[in-house]
Amino acid sequence: MINIVHIGIGPLGRRMVQFAHMRNSLRIIGAVDTNPKIAGRALGSVCDVRGLEIPIAPSLEAALGEQSAQVAIVTTVSSLAALEPLIATLARAGLHTISTCEELLYPWNTQPRVAERLDKLCKERGAVCLGTGVNPGYLMDFLPTVLTGVCQSVRAVRVTRVQDASIRRIPFQQKIGAGLTPDEFEKKRQEGTLRHVGLPESIDFLANRLGWRLDRNTESLEPVIAEQDVRTGYRPIAKGMARGVHQVGRGFVGDIEVITLTFHAAVGEPEAYDEVEVEGDPPIRSRIQGGVNGDIATCAVTLNAIRSVLSAKPGLRTMGDIAPISWSDSLPS
Amino acid sequence: MINIVHIGIGPLGRRMVQFAHMRNSLRIIGAVDTNPKIAGRALGSVCDVRGLEIPIAPSLEAALGEQSAQVAIVTTVSSLAALEPLIATLARAGLHTISTCEELLYPWNTQPRVAERLDKLCKERGAVCLGTGVNPGYLMDFLPTVLTGVCQSVRAVRVTRVQDASIRRIPFQQKIGAGLTPDEFEKKRQEGTLRHVGLPESIDFLANRLGWRLDRNTESLEPVIAEQDVRTGYRPIAKGMARGVHQVGRGFVGDIEVITLTFHAAVGEPEAYDEVEVEGDPPIRSRIQGGVNGDIATCAVTLNAIRSVLSAKPGLRTMGDIAPISWSDSLPS
Repeated sequence: MINIVHIGIGPLGRRMVQFAHMRNSLRIIGAVDTNPKIAGRALGSVCDVRGLEIPIAPSLEAALGEQSAQVAIVTTVSSLAALEPLIATLARAGLHTISTCEELLYPWNTQPRVAERLDKLCKERGAVCLGTGVNPGYLMDFLPTVLTGVCQSVRAVRVTRVQDASIRRIPFQQKIGAGLTPDEFEKKRQEGTLRHVGLPESIDFLANRLGWRLDRNTESLEPVIAEQDVRTGYRPIAKGMARGVHQVGRGFVGDIEVITLTFHAAVGEPEAYDEVEVEGDPPIRSRIQGGVNGDIATCAVTLNAIRSVLSAKPGLRTMGDIAPISWSDSLPS
Repeated sequence: MINIVHIGIGPLGRRMVQFAHMRNSLRIIGAVDTNPKIAGRALGSVCDVRGLEIPIAPSLEAALGEQSAQVAIVTTVSSLAALEPLIATLARAGLHTISTCEELLYPWNTQPRVAERLDKLCKERGAVCLGTGVNPGYLMDFLPTVLTGVCQSVRAVRVTRVQDASIRRIPFQQKIGAGLTPDEFEKKRQEGTLRHVGLPESIDFLANRLGWRLDRNTESLEPVIAEQDVRTGYRPIAKGMARGVHQVGRGFVGDIEVITLTFHAAVGEPEAYDEVEVEGDPPIRSRIQGGVNGDIATCAVTLNAIRSVLSAKPGLRTMGDIAPISWSDSLPS
């Protein structure tokens, strides 16, 4: 079994613990969270999992004690700058890091100095560091690059993720502005709290894998306005209110838009899907009908990446340069 | 640029040369074919490519001379036993092998001794050996494993490839028995010349990546009978004649069918698609509408694998343990 330690026991971290606990191939040997409300409590009681008596420790040292873990699953922050010291600590302790930190997916363009420091340190310590998740990490970046694998030439890649937020967690519905007035939406938009984080990193990842040097990388965000009353979400939304976000990231080579990522998440959306369109030879249009449930998949992608991380070369890696992830729950041979 | 040598200049090899010649990142420095009708002729004249004056040599030594290639693209035979001596020669000469040999995709179950010998030799010589192509190699094996990457659990995988053979090469239409009487079809079926080669290897690949130990791996093949006259193929097909094949590979754990691969290729097929269905949490149904053009894609997949092979660990590798392939045609940095 693979020994793992969970760092960050917030809403996502709790779900990650539940999922990891269900896997035959994983053994949770420690958990860390600095939140005084949960530090010291049994991991299982916080995560609603029976039989997980490990206490949540306030530090990595306290969590591991004499034990050694192979991989740390980190679900703490979206900011790579805030995360860097923790990854460094983990690498020095000989642990691989897999994190849902959106900015870690492909930081080579956005934060090259942090990327270089982490890459160097990880290589010195024989550790692997990977940013992943369902989005960014899989649906709008990794999977599209894999789909270009059947193409002799590629001129443009367009990815569209349309989600019906009615079935998602309340915090997700709040995060996309469902139920806000247009003014409230605009205020939050300007504060930057509504956006799906990671489109620029997804675009950079795609461009890197496809060998395109982008001249521009833009992002837009606008509300999806309810055209009639909507009652499928966690609270009723009146006609004229926002029911979600419509966000578009674009990558340009010269004036040519070679990458278009459309993230559309709204309460009451009639049709959900994840679509990849490759303009190339042959052209490819691939659709996952109904879309991929993000709450489940972000945990699944992260845990499924463990096996590929264990066989990867040390350094700051991406989903494109480790073995392709796939589900497996057998004990490693 | 990456120096490559093409071995096998048959119909598929010729197309591979055309495609490789179009790529900025690849340089063809040699070509080998033992067929006396083409050995000695200019590669470009045989492959209908202008400006490729390299002669087709009768042996690897004659093809390379003083030059050194990094990768050999091998499109000779479907039988791994017949291919083994060539791969051994290439590995000893320090070349990586990428081959469309169907049995090379995942030979660890079907031909374990050959697999072990090749793996050992490649590791000793620092060479990588990979079997790939669009099918087997990508659509019914690699891509489905990648799609399970978003799943917390997987109970079964079903892959369906439905092709309209009307738009495919005449040899392909002949290979699937289009235009044969039911008796002719049955005769050829018994001779084993009609089958799509590779379903057992695709099943073994999938099972290996998903960590399933299969108890049985079965294959069936039957004709698709024309229910009316069909005129879309290379020759008219009368009602009651075969217009293609319907082939199903199945993998079982105990009595449970965990893998189902359906290969359906027929002239006059109304709807073409490639579909992957993962029975799991979350369930996934992914479809490439119109399907993937196999003639183009088998060359593209092979050439797109070059970059991943160059960064892979030496040995007999599979599409599951090299970096995920994607299209790229930039010069490597």
